[in-house]
This record gives sequence, structure tokens and C-alpha cells, in this order.
Amino acid sequence: MGLLSPVRAGSAVEAATGDTAFVQAMLDAEAALARVVAPAGAAEAVAGAARVELYDVRDLALRARSGGNPVIPLVADLTAAVARTDGEAAPYVHRGATSQDIVDTATMLVAARALPLIVADLDRTAAELARLAAAYRDTPMPGRTLTQHAVPTTFGLKAAGWRALVLDARDRLAALRPPAQLGGAAGTLAAFGAGVAGVGLLARFAEATGLAEPDLPWHTLRTPVADLGSALAFTVGALGKVAADVLVLSRTEIGEVAEGAGGGSSAMPHKSNPVRATLMAAAARQAPGLAATLLGALAAEDERPGGAWHAEWQPLRELLRLAGGSARDAVELTSGLRVFPDRMAEHLRLTGGLIVSERIAAELGEVVGRARAKELLTEASRRVAEGGVGLAEALGGALPAERLRELMDPGTYVGSAPALVDRALGRDA
Amino acid sequence: MGLLSPVRAGSAVEAATGDTAFVQAMLDAEAALARVVAPAGAAEAVAGAARVELYDVRDLALRARSGGNPVIPLVADLTAAVARTDGEAAPYVHRGATSQDIVDTATMLVAARALPLIVADLDRTAAELARLAAAYRDTPMPGRTLTQHAVPTTFGLKAAGWRALVLDARDRLAALRPPAQLGGAAGTLAAFGAGVAGVGLLARFAEATGLAEPDLPWHTLRTPVADLGSALAFTVGALGKVAADVLVLSRTEIGEVAEGAGGGSSAMPHKSNPVRATLMAAAARQAPGLAATLLGALAAEDERPGGAWHAEWQPLRELLRLAGGSARDAVELTSGLRVFPDRMAEHLRLTGGLIVSERIAAELGEVVGRARAKELLTEASRRVAEGGVGLAEALGGALPAERLRELMDPGTYVGSAPALVDRALGRDA
Amino acid sequence: MGLLSPVRAGSAVEAATGDTAFVQAMLDAEAALARVVAPAGAAEAVAGAARVELYDVRDLALRARSGGNPVIPLVADLTAAVARTDGEAAPYVHRGATSQDIVDTATMLVAARALPLIVADLDRTAAELARLAAAYRDTPMPGRTLTQHAVPTTFGLKAAGWRALVLDARDRLAALRPPAQLGGAAGTLAAFGAGVAGVGLLARFAEATGLAEPDLPWHTLRTPVADLGSALAFTVGALGKVAADVLVLSRTEIGEVAEGAGGGSSAMPHKSNPVRATLMAAAARQAPGLAATLLGALAAEDERPGGAWHAEWQPLRELLRLAGGSARDAVELTSGLRVFPDRMAEHLRLTGGLIVSERIAAELGEVVGRARAKELLTEASRRVAEGGVGLAEALGGALPAERLRELMDPGTYVGSAPALVDRALGRDA
Amino acid sequence: MGLLSPVRAGSAVEAATGDTAFVQAMLDAEAALARVVAPAGAAEAVAGAARVELYDVRDLALRARSGGNPVIPLVADLTAAVARTDGEAAPYVHRGATSQDIVDTATMLVAARALPLIVADLDRTAAELARLAAAYRDTPMPGRTLTQHAVPTTFGLKAAGWRALVLDARDRLAALRPPAQLGGAAGTLAAFGAGVAGVGLLARFAEATGLAEPDLPWHTLRTPVADLGSALAFTVGALGKVAADVLVLSRTEIGEVAEGAGGGSSAMPHKSNPVRATLMAAAARQAPGLAATLLGALAAEDERPGGAWHAEWQPLRELLRLAGGSARDAVELTSGLRVFPDRMAEHLRLTGGLIVSERIAAELGEVVGRARAKELLTEASRRVAEGGVGLAEALGGALPAERLRELMDPGTYVGSAPALVDRALGRDA
Repeated sequence: MGLLSPVRAGSAVEAATGDTAFVQAMLDAEAALARVVAPAGAAEAVAGAARVELYDVRDLALRARSGGNPVIPLVADLTAAVARTDGEAAPYVHRGATSQDIVDTATMLVAARALPLIVADLDRTAAELARLAAAYRDTPMPGRTLTQHAVPTTFGLKAAGWRALVLDARDRLAALRPPAQLGGAAGTLAAFGAGVAGVGLLARFAEATGLAEPDLPWHTLRTPVADLGSALAFTVGALGKVAADVLVLSRTEIGEVAEGAGGGSSAMPHKSNPVRATLMAAAARQAPGLAATLLGALAAEDERPGGAWHAEWQPLRELLRLAGGSARDAVELTSGLRVFPDRMAEHLRLTGGLIVSERIAAELGEVVGRARAKELLTEASRRVAEGGVGLAEALGGALPAERLRELMDPGTYVGSAPALVDRALGRDA
Repeated sequence: MGLLSPVRAGSAVEAATGDTAFVQAMLDAEAALARVVAPAGAAEAVAGAARVELYDVRDLALRARSGGNPVIPLVADLTAAVARTDGEAAPYVHRGATSQDIVDTATMLVAARALPLIVADLDRTAAELARLAAAYRDTPMPGRTLTQHAVPTTFGLKAAGWRALVLDARDRLAALRPPAQLGGAAGTLAAFGAGVAGVGLLARFAEATGLAEPDLPWHTLRTPVADLGSALAFTVGALGKVAADVLVLSRTEIGEVAEGAGGGSSAMPHKSNPVRATLMAAAARQAPGLAATLLGALAAEDERPGGAWHAEWQPLRELLRLAGGSARDAVELTSGLRVFPDRMAEHLRLTGGLIVSERIAAELGEVVGRARAKELLTEASRRVAEGGVGLAEALGGALPAERLRELMDPGTYVGSAPALVDRALGRDA
Repeated sequence: MGLLSPVRAGSAVEAATGDTAFVQAMLDAEAALARVVAPAGAAEAVAGAARVELYDVRDLALRARSGGNPVIPLVADLTAAVARTDGEAAPYVHRGATSQDIVDTATMLVAARALPLIVADLDRTAAELARLAAAYRDTPMPGRTLTQHAVPTTFGLKAAGWRALVLDARDRLAALRPPAQLGGAAGTLAAFGAGVAGVGLLARFAEATGLAEPDLPWHTLRTPVADLGSALAFTVGALGKVAADVLVLSRTEIGEVAEGAGGGSSAMPHKSNPVRATLMAAAARQAPGLAATLLGALAAEDERPGGAWHAEWQPLRELLRLAGGSARDAVELTSGLRVFPDRMAEHLRLTGGLIVSERIAAELGEVVGRARAKELLTEASRRVAEGGVGLAEALGGALPAERLRELMDPGTYVGSAPALVDRALGRDA
Repeated sequence: MGLLSPVRAGSAVEAATGDTAFVQAMLDAEAALARVVAPAGAAEAVAGAARVELYDVRDLALRARSGGNPVIPLVADLTAAVARTDGEAAPYVHRGATSQDIVDTATMLVAARALPLIVADLDRTAAELARLAAAYRDTPMPGRTLTQHAVPTTFGLKAAGWRALVLDARDRLAALRPPAQLGGAAGTLAAFGAGVAGVGLLARFAEATGLAEPDLPWHTLRTPVADLGSALAFTVGALGKVAADVLVLSRTEIGEVAEGAGGGSSAMPHKSNPVRATLMAAAARQAPGLAATLLGALAAEDERPGGAWHAEWQPLRELLRLAGGSARDAVELTSGLRVFPDRMAEHLRLTGGLIVSERIAAELGEVVGRARAKELLTEASRRVAEGGVGLAEALGGALPAERLRELMDPGTYVGSAPALVDRALGRDA
């Protein structure tokens, strides 16, 4: 029921990937098969019985244990249901197919239905990020490396970078073409008749399902699953970058951004937690292990393996759900994000000018040589960090005071950040 | 509903780890807390309301999204329920605790309730394996390395080895002592009052829950979770070894063992698949990625992390379910396993004596020197493998025919296998 | 020295990814930078000193500890080397760059140099597999599902499937465009001057390195690393499928294929192990965990993270090496693979006709109805499997003897396997 | 050479786990075997030749490719070396053993030699942490949850928690008893003679190696490897927690701690990076994927698997190195850590009293009821967070001013933190 996965509880992707949706997808696969192998009337009868509400999903799950997959009991129930309305049609149910044809096709149908939901939320997120990048294109803030202030950047560049990652994820998901699966017992299409005719079924079945046509039956050629796994884990990871930054920037001591509606606490009335970012970060920690399982399942022996195939089912669904949930949270997070340029400006002054030591070092290097400049700055930095002395004083007049003042303005040392924002926003969403 | 995880569908561990069981465990944690912090009457009122059937689990899951965990809505509902029966008692609900105290304690309660179920199935499995090891203590079969016949072993030694792994798993699970969690908002127990008195609560709360007492609040000291993850993944992996062997030995060409009740096929009437082994093997492919997520969550910042904690919930439950399901399947597999000594004997003859080339090489080495013996055997092996000539002929009288015949009997070259079985069976279950 | 990784010991990719190659790549990055930011003479001086043989790699590794990356000591040594030949040029070394610019660019250079080596071996492998698929297009063999004989397939279809996976891997690797990295201290290019001019550096630096131009500095936008990780793990997994099948088919009892030159044993003169497949299978078990680490590193905070970046270095190199080693082994394995059609034919007869039960069930279904046919076949299969009776006898005349004989010929039940081979071979290598 | 792994470059564990150390360990295993199976003189000859400096390690690595493991070429070279000094002794080299006996024993010897180095550094780290915990037992600082100030804690409690994790790691490593491996070709000890005598070899060989005696040959019963993997990954993860906290507390805006000697930058003279923590955090991101590979290798078929065994070698060594390197860094980090109580005190005032909202809510609840108190505090918190008003004012006299002032002192709301420190320090190191 989603109790332990708030990231996806109640989301559209959760519903689209649930056991009920999966049984419907299996039924859709059977109906598509009937359209291809049965007379029109029989196909209609199968289609009529291919509605999940006619079946007991939990009972199917329990009966799946014996043969190890849910198709065997489902075919029995579907055949019985068809027989009740059209005795002639019943023998066409599942004709020529193997369990894996139905499970794999259903998995791809579920994926094909869930992916646009995720892509739509990524698009929404990208649009919000484009707005933020444009709005804060020139807003200086500390760039941070290895947790320390480095040199200034702009919040617009940060948002533009987030957007670039989100678009990378969107592109990778949108490029996927989940294929139908049809191979029969061992991938030779033998039960459909020999030769080229059998091969032609791949296109017809794919068309009937709305999925892509595969080159070959892919019972143990698991490219589609591995590609889904990698693209979904990439998506969750890309959103995890956004979350990681929001978590840092929301810290009480930093407070440069805040989620629109922070989460409360069971104990502390004042708490306003970055909950969306927290759940996205949690998703990003779970996805790699699941993707690893899918990548590992490539090494599947024979025409159907004893384990590698069954090992894909739950991790692939969970990845869809993490991606869908994280993308939903990303929309909320980015649309509601509050940005505090004043805090950013305040932090730029926090190091008393050290945040632009790189610039001062360059100019000073022109005067005293690069190595000597670095020594002087390193020593001055040490003294400033210890407190009680400003950088100008610590540098002891190595540069003219006026010039040093100019150099020490962090707001004028954002380099190409605005131009990079422009360039990044030029990428079509 | 378990549709994509037949390994655990309908199992006792599935029920013990479901969302309903988890909410009950959270309620148990709240009731235990009340017993420790509230007057007797109020504690009784809380206990009376701490029954999961009074709550809407799906609704809790949906409301968990806002704050990122299910405790916040649960405390609201529990407080309301208590207030309805005892207005004085309501303020004691959740007093002094933080959400993580309840979630972590509930997680450990769920684990503590699921572990004995798993251990019991491991014990049953070990007993079946002891029976098999004793029964086939001396039954020779090919030992196989890198997929090739190596030298003979006995099926009893194989079963004894499986049992050793199962007992290793059992010992690791049985050694776990899931602790209660109580720390308050940031692990200082501050809301319970200062000093040593607060520390004493750890023991009292632990006792009230039936869990172990922790040394410290462990909000971000995640040893208990990492230990569970490693022990459960070990268990699933250990059972995966049994499955891997059964899958090999069940192959159509090998057929030295068969599952008692093989699984059927949706297409092929003759199929009798090693389904229990398949599901156990599938579980073994999924567990490592989940354990990796839990090990990764050790690196949790602050007094409660933004993501690492939330990332534990689903993988830990899934590991409990994989272990519980795989152990259930292991009982069925081992209790029903059919063993075919005749096939084993037949296979020992398959290489025309090459399976004891090690023994012949040793004896021949005494005669012609070790290096020369290896050369002779390698050349003879090549000729035998090419077909049309027996090993005796290929060796061309390098050893007396009678002696060679003796040496070539694979049944007398099982080494210490039976003695190793005895030794292994001496280990207490 | 590769002792624990025979899969890559001595390979071209091992050399291309070693510490020496990596230092050379860092020097190449510095030389490219000088070409972009320094006067021609100075750039020449830097290029002249950018030869790895001038540096002590182990010493650099040891000195890398202090700052956490090898660029800091390398820049010191390079600056000193340049100063020795051209004092004016020294200040241009590393000008405007940050350590990550150099490490990331070097990593991509190493990848860009290793990938064609891997792709070439995948192409060689695909060519060998095309040869095998064509040669054995019609050669029947048992199709196996869940370890049991299912229905016949052809060895050509199996080889064509392997090739399809290898080409999928090749396509994914060939599509990668590793980008140069240049952002300066925090990704704003500030030290190169402000504005559009700075942005223009991305193209000029990329051109100087021979790498692709990035849209943005990608210090914490790790798409290139995640893409490499996924594509390399896919490659290793795809080759792992080939290995998994070869390991099964090489088993002593099966023997349908054998590696051209099996590996020997330290103890058993007769052993001829499928060593290439073993090492490829071992690689396939290691790659997913490494890819997971790279996917996890997407969630990198700030403008340079404290850990996520450093965590990429070893896993990415190891993935390159596993892919390179496995591809090398795949060339050897596929070019030398011995195929034994007689053993395949023999195995098709092993089940006394049960391997075509699907076909018989279909025909019998026309006569007695589908459900009844399945019952009859299931019962007959059970009796045949128990031994002592043939399928014809067990079916008791349900079909005419002559017709049954025809149906029971496994060689005529390979369905569309040959046509699928043709289709698959139509895909350009 | 360690260029891409500064965490371990130059460490004692790096040396103890290198290819040279590994070859020496294989030679030690061979020498131990000779002591058990050969006459004293021959054993002495073998021991005399069992010195790694006599062998070309790179050449062994290259020759290992053919058979897939380094024992085969090593036995050849060792035999030749022994033959040069004592022709009678040569035939005793490797007598009765299989490659895996030597590789596994060597792996365990390497582990057994590296573990005490790691444990010693963990002990040093724990001692430093005990010192910090005692020194800062009562030093208040903000407790932080989900990145936000929660309630106060003390730095001593944080350090005590780190120590608890480090001791957990130490205990898990110290409890490991790496066993010797001896089974012969397929784990039956057949080449050593039959029966109980063979079994007795396990103890004698174990004693000769200094390793623990196994119950059974464990060629495919990989408990020792899985246990090592889990304990090492736990260690790296536990140290990763310390690193995660140091990285947060070192942030420029927080600055509550600093590494003794921060790392410099190639671009910015002022930078003082938390490099030790960074490398430890990087290690913590790599370990889980490696442990997952080892846990996955439990599912190893047959008496020696085709891949699962070979897949263990590199990940196990890498885990030893990550643990050894991270522990070395932990010593440096904790011994040099600078703590700034003034910054902690300053941060406690940062939220204008909100950090003790829990305490105020409790007291206010006594007056106006719990629910109303929470409402009042939530509203007041909102106003304070918006700025311009203090908590006292925002609460508008709901509590007496004097009492509120007392309640708002964060330093008096550290709960049982000091007592918990005392309790934690009572645990023996």
C-alpha cells in the first residue's frame, strides 16, 4: 500500500505499475495475440474477457507460485471466461505463445504506459528550472567545492545545470522503445508455423499491442530491460543531484533556498523539513542496486533462464516507481522552491574576500610572479581564516587598495555563468 | 499483492512484513512507550487503541507523503482514538518520542517477528539436508569444476555442504538481536528529562517492546540495519547455492536430481521445471543489490539524515521477504527432492575413466616420474576425448591392466567424502 | 600487475587504462589547455614537457594523498619541467583550470582511447558470430528453458542472438561521445575572463583534446560518466550471456560446444576447461556493482562533491578493463568455438519425443479438443519420463502412427529459427 | 600504482594486498602444504624456494590467462626452482592440492595479514574518539535532522556515537577467523588418501598456515568470503558516517570542526579542504557494490563454479584496500580534528530559540493543552522564521518571560547526552 515508500504513494505511476495494472497488461497481451492468431469473432470474445475486474488478482498471485509465473493461472481463468461466452473462441487463448511472451509484453506495456507519466513530470520540472535559471541568471552565490567556498557562481547556472540533467534523463527515457515479445516456447515461433510467415507475426503482434517490433524474440536477449534499468536509474540519479543540492542549500546555517511547503515533525513545532528533496535523495540511494540487478540479469543462460528472468520483475517495477515518484516530487520541489538572494549575497562576504582569492592571485601574479603570489595569498588566507584581520590588511599593500577593493567584489567574479545559462537554455526542452 | 514475487506470495513472512503488520508494529511501539512514560490508566487507553484494525492503512500511506514518514499521521489518528475513550490519556501518546523512534522500533519488531519464521524454515531445511547427507553419504557422483567432470564426490557430501551453508545462515540470523530505538528528537532523550534517568529509559522501553536494549540511540548509527541486511543477503545467497546446484543437476541431460513436484508450462505438456530452485535463484540475484543499499546507508549525516534513513525501509522489508520466501521454498525443495544414484553412476562412466585421471597420474608418477606421467595422461586424455579409444588402450600398458582397472573404478575414489559427511553432520543444527 | 584479473592481464585496454596512460592523459589535457590559453611558444614548451616518461608515477600517486587528487603534484612537476626549458612558459601551466578539469578530461581521453579497442573486439566477435549463425542456421538443437528441454531451436539462432547482443553493446559504446571538461574552480570559467568569450573556450579546448564539446562544464552533471558506466556494464553483461550459454553447452554431459583451447588444471591431466567463458562470466558478475557506484555518483552535491567524484575513478577504470578483457576473450572464444551437431542431434532424441510435445498437443487438440489433448500429453509425458515406454505407446494410438512419427521428428520443428537467423544477419555490423 | 585511489596509496594495507604479497601468500600456502605432505627435507626445499623475489610476478599474471588462475604457472615455476636445489623434493610441490586450495588459502592469508593492520587503525581511531567524546562531553551544539536544527546535542555524544560505530566495525573484523582451504580437485581430499586420515589434514594444513581450520573444504561454500565482504563493507560504511558528519560540520557556513591539515587546491590559495573525510566518503560509496558482488558469489554451482569464484578476487582485495585506506585516514582525521565550541554556541542561537521549541511546547502544553501549545508554537515559529520578531514576542506572553528565558537556553537542553557519553565510553575498546 506504499506505507514504506512515500515517494510514490498515491502517484500516477504507482497506479500504472500495480498488480492490477500488470494483470490488465497481461490480458491486453493475450487480447492482442488473439487479434493476430484467431478469427475475428474469437478475438472479440477474448478481448471481451480481457478485463482485469473479472479476475482475482491476489488469487492469481498465490497460484503463480506453483509454476513460478502468473501466466499459467491467468490463462486458465481467461480460457474459462472466454468459454463461458464463446466456446469456439476458448482454444485460441494463448495460442502459440509461452508464458514469457505474455509477461514480457505486459512488462513493456506497463513501462510504455508509465514512461510518459514520468517524462511529463520531467518536462514540467525542466520548465520550472528554466524559469529559475532565467530569473536568477545573474544572481551570485558561493560556488562550493569539497564543502568549502571556492569562487562565486550564480544560482541561475545551478538551476540550468539541474535542468540539463533533467533533460538528459528525459531524453534517455523518451528514446526508449519498449518492444513486444513473441517467440513461443523457445523463441522460434514454431507453434505459429514455420518460416517467414512466423517472422511476420512479430510486426503484427507488436502493432496489436502498440509496442515496438523487436528484431528477434528477446527471451534471453535482455537489452530492453537493461536499457530501461539504466535510463530509469539515471533519471532517479539526476533528480538525486537536484535533491542533494537542495538539501545542502536548505541547511539551517545556509538557508539560500527552501522548499515551498516543508514537512513537519512529530516532535518539534518549528521544523520545516526539505521533505521532497529527502524523498528524492532516498530514491537515488535505492535505484543503483536495482539497476545492478537488471544489468546482472543480462547473463541469462539458455532460451529461458532459471532465475535471471524472474529476478527482473520486482526491481524493474520498483525502478519505475522510484522514477515516477521522484519526478512527481521534483515538480513540487522546483515549482515551489523559494530562493533567497540576500542570503547568498551575505555568504559571499563570509570569507572576507577569500572566495575570490583565485582572481586576486592571478592579478597579483602579474606583479610578483605566480609562485610568489600563491605564497602570499596562502599566507594571507591563513591569517584571515584565523580571524581578526581582513584580506586587504593581510596582503599588506601588495596591490593598490582601490584595485583590491574592486577585485574583492564577489559579484563581479561570476565569469561566464550568465552566458552559460543562456547557452544551456538554448537547448530545447 | 505479490504478483511479481511468487517466491514470497502467501508466505508467513509476507504477512508478517506487510503494511498492516508494519502499522501494528508502530502501534505496538507507541503502546510500549505509553507503558513507560504514562500513568497505568493512560497506558491502558493507548494500548486499547493500538490495534491496526482501527486505522486505514492506505490513508496513512497517502498522508505520509507530506512529512515523509507514516508516524505523523498515525500519531494524529492514534491520539484522536485515545481521546475518544480517555481524554486524559491522549497527551501521553508519542510523548517525548520522535518519528524515527517509532519507525525504527517498528522495523525491528517486524524483523524480530519475521526472523523466527525464517529460522524455523532454515532448521527444517537443515534437517532435510541432514537426512539426504546421511542417506547418500557414500553415493558416488561426478564432482564438477568449471562445468567439467573433475573427480568423483558423493551426493552426501554435496548435501552436507548445503546444510553447512544453511546452518551458517541460520546462525547469523539467530545471532541478531534487533534493538528498540528511543532517542527523542535528536537522540539525547531530552524530552524525557535529563541525565541518567533518561538513559534508564532505554532498558525500560526495550523491555516493554520485547526487543534488545541498545547502548545508544542509533538514529544514525545503523549497525542493526546493516547487520540485518548482511545476514539476510547471506541467507538468500546460501540458499542460492542450493538452487544453483539443483538447477544444474536437474538439467535434462544430467537428471541426477529432480524437484518433487516440478512446475508446469503454459505451452509444453511434458515440462517439469525446477521451479522452487528457480525462484530461490531469482531471489539470490536480487538480494545483493538490496544489501548494498543498506550498507550504503551507514554513511548517514547528522542526527537524522535527509535520505539515507528513508532509503532503508523498502530494501530491508524486501530482503526479509526474499529470505522468508526462499527459505519456504527450500523446505519444499529439500523435502521433496528426488535423487537418482543410477544416473550419477552412469555419468561416472561417461568419460571412460578420465574422471579419475588424477589418481592414475599419481600412481603412474610413482613409476615414470610425475612430469612424464602428466604428459602421458594428457595425451591419453586427448585421445579418449576424441573418441574411439579407451583410456587403458590409450595408456598403452603403462600400468598393469589389472591395476589400471582397479584405479579406474570411480566409486573407490571418493576420498574422504564420507568422513567429511560424518564430520559435517556432527555440527549441531 | 593483473594477477587477480586474468581477464584483462596483458590486454591492450589494460595498457590504455593504466596509471601511466592516465598520467599521460592528464599531461595531454594540460598541453591542450596551454594551446588554448598560452602563446604558441609557451604552448610548445608545455607540450614538450607533457611526456609521461619524465615523471615518477608512483611518486605522484603518493603525493596525491595530501590534496586528494593527482593533479596538484603533477602541476607542480610539470611547471618545474617547463620552467627548466622555458621560464616564460611556466606560468601558463594549468592556467585558469581546476584539478577536476584535468582529471575529468584525462578520464575521458582514457575512455576515448580504450573504447575503440573494445569496439574493435566486439566487431571481431560479431563477425565470428555471423559466421557461426550462417554455418549453423539450420542445425537443430534442444531449446532449453528453466534448464529443461523445451522445443528444438537451431544453433544458428543462438549464435544470431549472441551477435544481436554484441551489436547492441557495440552500438551503445560507439554512440558515446566522451566530452572534454573545462570549467575552472567552480564551473564558471571565471579565470578565463567573463562572458561569451569564456564559453567559446569549451569548443576550443575540446578541439585541442580531440574530445566532444560539452554544453556546460559538467563537474557535478555526471551524465558522461553514468553513460559510460551503463554502456560498459551492458557490454560486459551481453558478453556474459554468451559465456553463460557456452558454460552450459560445454558441460561434460552436454558437450554440444567446446572452446578451441580449453584451460588445463593444476591437478587433473584430462581437464579442458571453458576458461574464456569462465573469465567472461566472472566479469559479468563484477560489472553491475561497479556501474551501480557510478549511477550512485550522479547525486553529487555542490560544484564539486566531497566523495562522489573521487568514488568514480577506480570503478570506471575497472569497468573499462572488464569490458576490454571480456571482449578480447570473446574474440578468442567465438573464433575458436567447436560445435558438435551430432551431440545436438543426439540430445534431441533424449526425451523420446517429448521435446516436441507442443506440436503433438496442437495436432491432438484438433482431434480431441485442446484441454483433453493437454491431459493426454501430460499423462503420457509422465509415463515416458518414468522410463520403459515410448511416447507413441504412451499415447496409445490417439494419433495415427505414421503421422505421429512425422510429428516426432525434432528436426522439422524449428519453426522460424532459420528465417530469424536471416533477419538477424541482415542487421549491419 | 594507486594513482586513482589516493585513499590507499602508500598504506600498509596496500602493500599487504599487492600482487607481490599475493604471490608470497600462494608460496606460503605451497610451503605449508609441503610441510604436511612431504618428508622434512623436501618440505625444507619447498620452503626455501617459496620466496616471491625468485619469481616474475607480471609474467605469472600473463601466464595465468591460459588456465584462468595464477597457480598453474606458479606451480610450474616453483617446481622448477625446487628441482634446481633438490630433485627429490620437486614431486612434492602442490601434491594433492588443486589451484583453488592455493588461491583461497593465499587470499585468506592476505586477509589475515591485512586485518590486524586495519583493526589497529580502528583502535587508534576509537582512542582518539574516546578522547574527543570525553573532552566535549558537555559541549552543546545543534542536533540536526533532515538538514535542519532540531534540538541541541553535545559534540561529545556525536564523537561517542562515531566511536560506537568504529568499535562495531573493529569487533566485526576482529571476530573473523579466515580459514585455510584444502580439498583437492573436487573437495574430497581424495589425492591425500581416503577416510578420516584425509580429514585430519584440514587441521594440520590449517596449523601450518596459521589460519583457522575449516569444518569442510569450502570451494563452493563461500561463507568466509561473504563474511569478509560484509565486515569490510561495514567498516568502510561506519567510517563513512564519520566522514559524512565531518563534511557537514566543516562547511564554510558551519565551521564547527576542521581537519587538522586540510588539502590544498590547484587553483585557489585559500582552500583548506576536508580531504581525509572526502576520501573516506568516496570509499564508502564504493564498498557496497563490491560487497554485493561477493554476496552474489555465494550462489556458486558445482564443486568449483565457472565464474563466481574468479569474480571474488578483485572485489575482495579492493575492499581490504578501501577499509585499510579509510581506517588510515580516520586516524589522521580524528587525531587532528579541530573543534570549535564557539561556533557551535553561536549556531545554537541562530534560530532565536526555535531549537528548543520541543521543550517550550512541553511546558506550554501543561498550561494550555498539548494541541493548542503546538498550534501556538507552530505559528510563532513561522513568524520568527520570517524574521523581525523574537520567539518571546511571537509567543505573546503565553509563558512568563523569566521562565521562557530559562527554557530558551539551549545549553540546558541537552538531555541525557552527557550520561549517554559516559555509558558509551564504558564500552571496552
